[in-house]
Amino acid sequence: MSESVIRAATTEDIPAIVAMLRDDPLGAQRESADDLTPYTAAFERLTADPNQRLIVAVRAGRVIGTLQLTFVSGLSRLGATRSIIEGVRIHAGERGSGLGTRLIEWAIEESRSRPDCRLVQLTSDATRTDAHRFYERLGFEPSHIGFKLPL
Amino acid sequence: MSESVIRAATTEDIPAIVAMLRDDPLGAQRESADDLTPYTAAFERLTADPNQRLIVAVRAGRVIGTLQLTFVSGLSRLGATRSIIEGVRIHAGERGSGLGTRLIEWAIEESRSRPDCRLVQLTSDATRTDAHRFYERLGFEPSHIGFKLPL
Repeated sequence: MSESVIRAATTEDIPAIVAMLRDDPLGAQRESADDLTPYTAAFERLTADPNQRLIVAVRAGRVIGTLQLTFVSGLSRLGATRSIIEGVRIHAGERGSGLGTRLIEWAIEESRSRPDCRLVQLTSDATRTDAHRFYERLGFEPSHIGFKLPL
Repeated sequence: MSESVIRAATTEDIPAIVAMLRDDPLGAQRESADDLTPYTAAFERLTADPNQRLIVAVRAGRVIGTLQLTFVSGLSRLGATRSIIEGVRIHAGERGSGLGTRLIEWAIEESRSRPDCRLVQLTSDATRTDAHRFYERLGFEPSHIGFKLPL
């Protein structure tokens, strides 16, 4: 198997990213591939924001993973910037290959490269127990409750 | 008691905001008022970011509450932007006055005013059980586990 490469996502990657977002027990209920227009508009908002990184892992021209990293500055913790990981997806055929670990390690390294960033955080649905073990193995502490309010 | 006003924070509010961040069981261990330089630098990063709102509640010229709201665009959930609430603090003498509810309701309304924003979220330390009841009363669902990794 050839090596996978991690790079910034481009508009051409949107269909593959949406397909991975949908191929998930929770994502299947909230995503749709019928019309990619809202995803394209979101991609444009995202790439216009210098605090956002949307990345894909690609092997042999095929998108096999994705992750979004956002930098959020703030006054708390002596003015620390925190990074937030969202939308981690690994293609069904690539799960268990270590690619998830590589993507999270990329996010941690990218966060470290910003001198003011002193915390990486993420929330994971309470039903994703396998994901919780995965994040704990990578050193994350399940110290918080994540609250959501749909508008 | 005169009415309180909610407005954008200015550099003059930094000492009062830091005092509130410190006057908290967790904040007491992580904040310092000896040197405000790192907070001022963080304030400048924050106000330069069009996706950030740092607000204060003020009554009779005195800062009595604060909250930070961040808009994060993304591809998930049909390209939904989500808003993230951080750093909610109410001055010790004002707790139980309903000001916390007013600040969170401000954040929800501000989020609704952005057509692409369809989710408000926050994490709360697992030890803050009173805060959890407060957020649930306001309609937030404790559906997620919040993971943190200090750098």
